[in-house]
Amino acid sequence: MPFKSFDELRAACQDLPAGNDRAAAAVAARQDTLTKPQGSLGRLETIVAWLARWQGRDTPRLDKVKVIVFAGSHGVTAQGVSAFPAEVTAQMVANFAGGGAAVNQLARAAGAELDVIPLEIDRPTGDFTQVPAMSEAEFLEAVSIGHASVAGDLDLVCFGEMGIGNTTTAAAIAAALFGGKAERWTGRGTGVDDAGLQRKIAAIEKALKLHAEILGNPLKAAAAVGGRELAAILGATLAARQLGIPVLLDGFVSTAAAAPLARLHSAGLAHAMAGHVSAEAGHRGLLAALELPPLLEMGMRLGEGSGACLAVNIVRSALACHTGMASFAEAGVSEK
Amino acid sequence: MPFKSFDELRAACQDLPAGNDRAAAAVAARQDTLTKPQGSLGRLETIVAWLARWQGRDTPRLDKVKVIVFAGSHGVTAQGVSAFPAEVTAQMVANFAGGGAAVNQLARAAGAELDVIPLEIDRPTGDFTQVPAMSEAEFLEAVSIGHASVAGDLDLVCFGEMGIGNTTTAAAIAAALFGGKAERWTGRGTGVDDAGLQRKIAAIEKALKLHAEILGNPLKAAAAVGGRELAAILGATLAARQLGIPVLLDGFVSTAAAAPLARLHSAGLAHAMAGHVSAEAGHRGLLAALELPPLLEMGMRLGEGSGACLAVNIVRSALACHTGMASFAEAGVSEK
Repeated sequence: MPFKSFDELRAACQDLPAGNDRAAAAVAARQDTLTKPQGSLGRLETIVAWLARWQGRDTPRLDKVKVIVFAGSHGVTAQGVSAFPAEVTAQMVANFAGGGAAVNQLARAAGAELDVIPLEIDRPTGDFTQVPAMSEAEFLEAVSIGHASVAGDLDLVCFGEMGIGNTTTAAAIAAALFGGKAERWTGRGTGVDDAGLQRKIAAIEKALKLHAEILGNPLKAAAAVGGRELAAILGATLAARQLGIPVLLDGFVSTAAAAPLARLHSAGLAHAMAGHVSAEAGHRGLLAALELPPLLEMGMRLGEGSGACLAVNIVRSALACHTGMASFAEAGVSEK
Repeated sequence: MPFKSFDELRAACQDLPAGNDRAAAAVAARQDTLTKPQGSLGRLETIVAWLARWQGRDTPRLDKVKVIVFAGSHGVTAQGVSAFPAEVTAQMVANFAGGGAAVNQLARAAGAELDVIPLEIDRPTGDFTQVPAMSEAEFLEAVSIGHASVAGDLDLVCFGEMGIGNTTTAAAIAAALFGGKAERWTGRGTGVDDAGLQRKIAAIEKALKLHAEILGNPLKAAAAVGGRELAAILGATLAARQLGIPVLLDGFVSTAAAAPLARLHSAGLAHAMAGHVSAEAGHRGLLAALELPPLLEMGMRLGEGSGACLAVNIVRSALACHTGMASFAEAGVSEK
């Protein structure tokens, strides 16, 4: 279902299925029969209830877990906002294909399949300090590719991204959606120096002024100051909700990419859990604004879906406890 | 090597092998060649250097990972300090053997073997509000069993515990080693109510007064207000250091059990990493006192080695990145 207009996409984002409270309650009821003090597995217990609610299954499963990494190129790199040259985006896509990147190892360790979807990486978006990054048609094309990338048979999905310059893009989206000055959202990305950080802030401030008129509209903002891989993550996160697939969010860029959904629907990201909080400056504040407490905090700032992959292990362990543990009655253990 | 006296054990705790700085440096040097911004895997990078330092290998491995759960019975349960009856210790040991406990599922999910070692669970320690929990001989017997439980071919080991009443024991040890009033270290364990919490605090205060004379001696304190499973963890943690095996600590009880090693040697727990910080009240402060930042924070408070098992997944992912990723040169990716 390719989206034909901002209006059509907005309507889809505002017509989301609710979670299955009955399945979540069934999980919670079973948790209290298992051989442990009630609640003593902490977040592992709520994770399973979350899986149940969004899979719509009393006994959730994790047979098929996928990581999808979207890659895009950013016109704003012309402003000197990254520590790495723009050609690294294509080089890293090749590295993903060759199995040599961090996400390849982390996906394998988590028992997840990896898909990589480059989005016209030889055709950067417009430099959003000068023009909109994408036209309505370009943005919807990327959203639609992301939307179509999510197969209905997945049990859990993670979205990652690769795109030199895209922490600048993500900071611009976060500022557009949640307000505050550019500094609030701007970090060092892959490792820019002080001068580079100032260039990032200046580029974002310029963009926020240039596109001020449309920033109140989350989708138009995501087109004007976003990027193709971010638009694809938005579409993919929407598709996951429609298909009953829980989502683990990755870092600052992935979270900013999905954030318009939360601006268009009060529970738009309820099917998503924050896999981690990254070391990129704006991520903690963005997760707080979205009321998404992160599972992990490892000081990572790589993107690619790396933090979300790591969190898959936690989700697997949580489910293993729930499905494998004996009840007090089965094990003959005295209760409190 | 069964320990024959407090003095002999203290001498062993003060004669610990240092880590292999060269191996850690080799890991750090390789990290900076891999296809990611330097340092962007955050704690995953330092984890691998830690493995290298304590395994003494330039390329660490995780072929053989074990979780050892020690169980013991506590005389202090006579003071009404637990929400569960004392017979649950033996019932849970049976549950471990039957594969029905949380740690069974978490060990399997982490690719770790599980050993369970009950320590005279039909013979509780003395009620330390009245008498020393253990004599020197009883304490050293438990330490020696723990010490002998660690095979030299392990690549990583986690120590867990089961023993109704043992958060009271752990709080008493923490207070003895690090000072402060009983309240500072006392939490709700498996879930005591307010009255139970007050009974715990009263029992610990009474014990601290009764055994005041020997509390300045970490080993004598661990005998007087400790428990057999805690003593075994102390011996096992010492053995791991001697054998070049990194340790993942679990929760409040396991950490308190190992803490005398840090009191007897300034780097006594350098080969240990805190797998998680639990929800049990005293754990965060104990880890801070030991300068051991936790890997995970999941609100768990179960013990059994559950949090350490969960952290094994993170350690595995960290190593997978280090050994599997391509270098910039190998992948043809431009550097900064």
